[in-house]
Amino acid sequence: MAKAPVLTPQAEDFPRWYQDVISKAELADNGPVRGTMVIRPYGYGLWERMQSEIDARIKAAGARNAYFPLFIPQSYMVKEAEHVEGFAPELAVVTHGGGKQLEEPAVVRPTSEMIINDYFAKWVQSYRDLPLLINQWANVVRWEMRPRVFLRTTEFLWQEGHTAHATYEDARDYAARIHREVYADFMVNVLAVDVVLGRKSPAERFAGAINTLTLEGMMRDGKALQMGTSHELGQNFARAFDTRYLSKEGSRELVWQTSWGSSTRMVGGLIMTHGDDNGLRVPPRLAPVQAVVLAVKDDEAVLAKVRELGAALGAAGIRAEVDDRTDTPFGRRAVDWELKGVPVRVEIGPRDLAEGTAMLARRIPGGKEPVSIEQLPKLLPTVLEEDQALLLRQSRELREGRTRDVQTIEEAVEVATRGGWARIPWAELGAEGEQRLAKDAVSVRCLVAEDGSVPESDDAPGTLAIVGRSY
Amino acid sequence: MAKAPVLTPQAEDFPRWYQDVISKAELADNGPVRGTMVIRPYGYGLWERMQSEIDARIKAAGARNAYFPLFIPQSYMVKEAEHVEGFAPELAVVTHGGGKQLEEPAVVRPTSEMIINDYFAKWVQSYRDLPLLINQWANVVRWEMRPRVFLRTTEFLWQEGHTAHATYEDARDYAARIHREVYADFMVNVLAVDVVLGRKSPAERFAGAINTLTLEGMMRDGKALQMGTSHELGQNFARAFDTRYLSKEGSRELVWQTSWGSSTRMVGGLIMTHGDDNGLRVPPRLAPVQAVVLAVKDDEAVLAKVRELGAALGAAGIRAEVDDRTDTPFGRRAVDWELKGVPVRVEIGPRDLAEGTAMLARRIPGGKEPVSIEQLPKLLPTVLEEDQALLLRQSRELREGRTRDVQTIEEAVEVATRGGWARIPWAELGAEGEQRLAKDAVSVRCLVAEDGSVPESDDAPGTLAIVGRSY
Repeated sequence: MAKAPVLTPQAEDFPRWYQDVISKAELADNGPVRGTMVIRPYGYGLWERMQSEIDARIKAAGARNAYFPLFIPQSYMVKEAEHVEGFAPELAVVTHGGGKQLEEPAVVRPTSEMIINDYFAKWVQSYRDLPLLINQWANVVRWEMRPRVFLRTTEFLWQEGHTAHATYEDARDYAARIHREVYADFMVNVLAVDVVLGRKSPAERFAGAINTLTLEGMMRDGKALQMGTSHELGQNFARAFDTRYLSKEGSRELVWQTSWGSSTRMVGGLIMTHGDDNGLRVPPRLAPVQAVVLAVKDDEAVLAKVRELGAALGAAGIRAEVDDRTDTPFGRRAVDWELKGVPVRVEIGPRDLAEGTAMLARRIPGGKEPVSIEQLPKLLPTVLEEDQALLLRQSRELREGRTRDVQTIEEAVEVATRGGWARIPWAELGAEGEQRLAKDAVSVRCLVAEDGSVPESDDAPGTLAIVGRSY
Repeated sequence: MAKAPVLTPQAEDFPRWYQDVISKAELADNGPVRGTMVIRPYGYGLWERMQSEIDARIKAAGARNAYFPLFIPQSYMVKEAEHVEGFAPELAVVTHGGGKQLEEPAVVRPTSEMIINDYFAKWVQSYRDLPLLINQWANVVRWEMRPRVFLRTTEFLWQEGHTAHATYEDARDYAARIHREVYADFMVNVLAVDVVLGRKSPAERFAGAINTLTLEGMMRDGKALQMGTSHELGQNFARAFDTRYLSKEGSRELVWQTSWGSSTRMVGGLIMTHGDDNGLRVPPRLAPVQAVVLAVKDDEAVLAKVRELGAALGAAGIRAEVDDRTDTPFGRRAVDWELKGVPVRVEIGPRDLAEGTAMLARRIPGGKEPVSIEQLPKLLPTVLEEDQALLLRQSRELREGRTRDVQTIEEAVEVATRGGWARIPWAELGAEGEQRLAKDAVSVRCLVAEDGSVPESDDAPGTLAIVGRSY
C-alpha cells in the first residue's frame, strides 16, 4: 500500500514535522488569540490519561486537590520580590468586569503561589495542620512572545502542587519525593521518556525557590525539554505572607514550603520523543486507544467479527476501539491510525476471516503479520508491554548516543549546536561559563552527580552540568 | 455528648446557615477578587466525585472531551445577536498582555459557544463528520453583582457540551438524551435530589437557544435551584458561523446544534437539599468519604484495630478513611465529621474493643448503636444504600409537600412567597403573567406536561408552569 507523504520528514525540518504531526493527527489547532491553543479530542485524550496517572500518584503521596481563583489582585503580585520579577513580563491583566473599569486590576494567574500562600497563612495555625499538602489542576496564562503548540503557549493546562511543612528537612524530602515518585515514575514508566533527574543551576531556578529539581528529556532532534519541576521554596513565601504555626513547644514558627508542576507541555515531549516520519507513536500504557480493530470492507460477517473482537479485547482489559467506518477508504483510515500512533492495528477483511486470522500491524516496531483472531485477547497484553519497553529503550539509546563527556566550554557548545548534550564538570563551567553558553543559545539543563543521582548542593564535589539547547 | 451550637439553625436564617456550613465544614472560602471562591479540599472532593460520575455518563453518550481557549477575541462576541445581548453585561475583559496594551481586547469566556463554533465551522466538512459530540471541563467567568459561594460566583467550574448534527430531530433527541441520561440520572441516583425535568418558558431560555431543557431542585427553604440545562440551539449559531456539511446527496446544509452544562453550583444544591442543623449530609454514592473509622482514645490496640478495619472496609469497596488524630479531642473530631456529612462514623474505644463492637453513628437517619466490628464490612454497603434511598425520599417528600396546584396568579405568588412551588396552567399564566410574577421576584422554573413528562412545545395543551422563587 503506497502512502501519501503527509508529513515533512524529521531529518528535513524537525519543527515543521512537529507542526505537521499536531495538525494531521488532529491533536491541536492554534487558538484565535495569539499563543493560545485548541486541544482537539485525540490530543485531549492523551492529556486526560496523563492527568489520571499523575493524579493517582499525587494522591498516593498524600496531597489533596483544591481550586483557587483564576484572578489575583494585582497588589498580591508584589509580595515576594524575586517571584514578581520573574513573572511580571508575562502577565495578562483584566481591567474591566461587568461593564465597568475595576478599582483594582486583576492578574490572570501565571502560577498560584501568591494566592495560595494567602490562604495557607490563614489555614495553618498549629503543628497539627502540617504538613499541608495541596494540588490544583488548572489553566494558567503567561504571555508568550514565541508560542509553539503544547511547548510554549499563552494559556496552558497543568497541575501545581503547593505544600507547607514544619521543618526544612520535611519540605526538602517532600519535593524530592514528588520529583521521584510522581514525575520520574510517571515519565519513565508510562510516558517511556528516559528523563534525566537533576537540580537546576542557581541561574535556572524558579523565581523565589532555593532549589529546583527538574526532569529533562532528550527530544529526537537532540534538544532538551524540561518535562516537570519540583521546587523547595524555603521560607521565602512564608516570610512574605507571615505563614506561621504554633509548635508543640508553644513557639510561632515560619513554615517551609514546596511547589511543583507538570503541564500540557508533556504532550509536546511525547510527540518529539517517540514520533517518527509516519506520525506519532504512543506508549501503550498511556494510549487512550491501545488497539484499533478495523473492518477492511463493508461485509456483514467482517463487521460482526470486528465488533465481537473489539468487545473481547475490552473484556481483556485493553483500551480498544472499533473502526467500522467503511464509507471511508480503508487505506485512508489505516494511515490515520498510524498518524495518531495507536500502538496496534488489527485489520480484518473477508479473506482473513475465512482463515480465522487478522493482520496485526504494530506501530512501534513496525511490521505486519497474520495472527489467529482467537489468540488476540491473550496475545495483545504481551505485545503492548514489549512495545512499551522498546520505546523506553529507544529513548535511552538516543540520549546515551547523543551525550558526550567534555572538559571545555567550547566543546560543550559544539556538542550542543550539533544537536546533543554535553556533560561537563560544573566546577569547570560555573555561573560565568553559563553566561558564555547563553551567547550560543545553549543552557545548563541540570546538575547531576557523577553516579547519575541528584546532587545535594550546587557545589558538591564531582557535580556535572548537562548542557544543551532546549525548547 | 453536648454539642456546641456551631451553625445558625436553618429555621432562624437559612442563608446564614448556608454560609456557616460552607465555612465550618471547610468547603470553600471567598476569594480576594469579589465574587470568586477558593474551593477547599473537602469541597473539591465533592466536585471531583461529581465530575467523575458526570464524565462517565457523558462518555457513555458518545461525546469526547476537548479544550478550547479561555480568551475569546472581543470581535467574536458579536456574531450571534441574542447570545451577545445575554452575556454582554457579565464579561471580564483582558486589555493588557505581556506588558503591552492588546490590539484587540480579549474576553474571558463566559461560555464557549462563540469560540467552539468557530472551530466547528472548520472541522465539519461532510456528513461523515456528524454528529460531532464535544464536551469541555473548564472554568468560566461571569461578573456577578450578588455573588454567593457555589451558587453564583464570578468564576465557576463546569462542563459544557457542544454538538452538531445533520438533522433537527437528531439534535433535539441528543439534547433530550443528555437531559435524561446524563443529568437526571446523575442528580436523582447519585445526588439524591428529586429534580423536576421540564422545559424553560421562552423568556427563561438560554440566549441563542430555540429550546432549553432544565432540571430544577427544591431546596430546604422551598426555593428552586436550576441544577443543569440542555439547549437546542437550532441553526442560530450554524448560520452565524456558516457551519455546513456536504450531505450524501451532495448539497451543503447547515448543521443543527445543542449545548448543555452543569457546574459547581451543584455543590450548593447538594448542601441546601440535604443539609440540616448539624451540617452537611452527603449521599453515600457521591461521598468522597463514605465511612470514617475513629479511634476514640490513644490506645495501641484501638489504633491497630481502627487501621485494620479501615483497610477491611476499603477492601470491601467502601471509600473509608481512618481518623487516628488522637491529639485532637474525640468530641471535636466527631462534630467535625458530622459537619462534613460523612454518612457513617465507626467509633472504637478500649471498652468497645473489649466487647468486639464499635459504635455505628449514621449521619443521615441519625442515631448510634453498637455493632459487631467483624460484621461491618458486610453490613455497611447495605446501610449506605438505605441511607442513599432515604435522602432521595426526603427530597421527594419535601418537594411534594411544598408544591400546590393553583389556578390564579395571585395564588401562585402567595405559595411562592411562603416558600414553595405553585403548579399553574401555562395557558392561564402565559408571558404576561410571567411578567406579573417577576414583580414579586417569582419566576417560571419550568413547564411540564400534566403527566410530569417534558412537553414537546410551549403551547402543548395541558402544559403546566412550575412557579417559585429561586437562587
